[in-house]
Amino acid sequence: MPNVRITEVGPRDGLQSIRGVMSTPHKCSWIEQLARAGLPEIEVASFVPAKLLPQMADAAEVVRFSTQLKHITISALVPNVMGAKAAFSAGVHKVVIPVSASEAHSVANVRKTHAQMLQEVRAIIAERNAIDPAITIHIGLSTAFGCSIAGAVPEDDVVVLTRQLAELGVDAIGLADTTGYANPAQVKRLFARVRAEVGPLCKSAHLHNTRGLGLANALAAFEADIREFDSSMGGIGGCPFAPGASGNVVTEDLVFMFEAMGITTGVDLDALMKAREAFAAGLPDEPTYGMVAAAGLPKGFRSSRGNVMSNVPASAPQAEY
Amino acid sequence: MPNVRITEVGPRDGLQSIRGVMSTPHKCSWIEQLARAGLPEIEVASFVPAKLLPQMADAAEVVRFSTQLKHITISALVPNVMGAKAAFSAGVHKVVIPVSASEAHSVANVRKTHAQMLQEVRAIIAERNAIDPAITIHIGLSTAFGCSIAGAVPEDDVVVLTRQLAELGVDAIGLADTTGYANPAQVKRLFARVRAEVGPLCKSAHLHNTRGLGLANALAAFEADIREFDSSMGGIGGCPFAPGASGNVVTEDLVFMFEAMGITTGVDLDALMKAREAFAAGLPDEPTYGMVAAAGLPKGFRSSRGNVMSNVPASAPQAEY
Repeated sequence: MPNVRITEVGPRDGLQSIRGVMSTPHKCSWIEQLARAGLPEIEVASFVPAKLLPQMADAAEVVRFSTQLKHITISALVPNVMGAKAAFSAGVHKVVIPVSASEAHSVANVRKTHAQMLQEVRAIIAERNAIDPAITIHIGLSTAFGCSIAGAVPEDDVVVLTRQLAELGVDAIGLADTTGYANPAQVKRLFARVRAEVGPLCKSAHLHNTRGLGLANALAAFEADIREFDSSMGGIGGCPFAPGASGNVVTEDLVFMFEAMGITTGVDLDALMKAREAFAAGLPDEPTYGMVAAAGLPKGFRSSRGNVMSNVPASAPQAEY
Repeated sequence: MPNVRITEVGPRDGLQSIRGVMSTPHKCSWIEQLARAGLPEIEVASFVPAKLLPQMADAAEVVRFSTQLKHITISALVPNVMGAKAAFSAGVHKVVIPVSASEAHSVANVRKTHAQMLQEVRAIIAERNAIDPAITIHIGLSTAFGCSIAGAVPEDDVVVLTRQLAELGVDAIGLADTTGYANPAQVKRLFARVRAEVGPLCKSAHLHNTRGLGLANALAAFEADIREFDSSMGGIGGCPFAPGASGNVVTEDLVFMFEAMGITTGVDLDALMKAREAFAAGLPDEPTYGMVAAAGLPKGFRSSRGNVMSNVPASAPQAEY
């Protein structure tokens, strides 16, 4: 078993945040390459009205394709019962329900107060229990580290909300830095507080790299005993150098950080680079990011999967240091 | 006193790595703005032959200007005795001598073996002692975390070299990730090993963001009790998305990370943004980077210097998390 579990969320979080619409065959081809790279889980779609997110109109078809792949958990985002029913019908292994820690964000994002959202979660759990108790209900606790509408989000509010969600019987809770506001000290503190309240039910980190702290925050979460991380191939869904950017942590760079530290991910970096090509084939005009993809692996580097690719010129300018 | 001390190395490490040559008045104006932002130290030049680095031909003039600024340490890079003499004459407070942990890199970079380089350091110290014992001799131990020529650099070699440098009587040693090979686990381990050998004489980290791990490595160094960091405004000196890029950690993002964690830097982020304009005035065609500069500070954020600038749109797309 790898030491950390990385969930690729690009096909959902990435694709729904950009203007271009990837065709269904291209999505399937990309997801297949991601699975081949050894990622243990992929969030492949959002079940929301196609009118709101045309990028996700083929969610059911993409899920049906993806669940045929071997040795991989397929999840989808569902903001409400209607979405959850559609996701269950399509055969997902797991649904991710976004619950905003900031009530102002909740109202703006899904037009529901905390009380209404908890009611929605309760209804989704009931529906899941009736259809297939093996399906995982995962809460993505968005704006847990700060909100672009409300500003700071009290940690007490986060703790109370996770307690309420735990009492409803959700299977897992992840803390999400939706806005890229988190810092490493806060990440450690909040994960420790929430886990003191609900234990290992709080098990994953969904981090954005908006202010460049994505990997530092992932390191802090790891040091707070978190072993599950979301990330997005090529950081798609946000340009790191555009105002308001909200790109996820780049999967390739996250895998590199852990593997370089001797923390196994089970992911094959060479195959991951191939999956970048599958993404580019589907959306040729969409920029992708990634520092390791640009710089290559260090000379002599070997990941736990044996990757040694290197394209770094051995230049040594005068008085370099 | 701020909790951490950040040295801006852009005028040296940044400017010497790019093709464009900034005029002397523009350099002085930029350095003045950097000083106004509260940076406690600036590395302003390299004393190397103008034939090799035309960008640094005005080193003496830039040092003479910079040392007139108040409350700031002015340092310069010197690869040999000739450079050190020129730097001392110009009035620097500190010289930084690059010593490669990798002998292959040393030979390629300054055409000296370890033994020859130690001899050079000894000669620089003797010269300093004769001229002004108050001038600080700082060793930048380059390729300490890996070398693009030799690959991995044995940690034992680094420890031995730092012991030899300590015995020569240098005032400070910084470990430099010249190649962007370092990972957080290695950073913690190597700083701990070297400090076990030479104590707090090893006190600073010079980190590059080549593979995106710059801030995570800075966090790791901080956790290893390092309180002095080099960084470069706008990450100049390397494009983060170009192959072979070797940009330093971005000063603005490093300041943000620490301040967000409640670790004071003494740096004014608003003034730092103004200094970016001074850089751009001097080299309008040179790209600068920086995630915080692009995304703004979080809503409600307040640094220890009172900065609250924010340009983030409070957008909330459907089913964001």
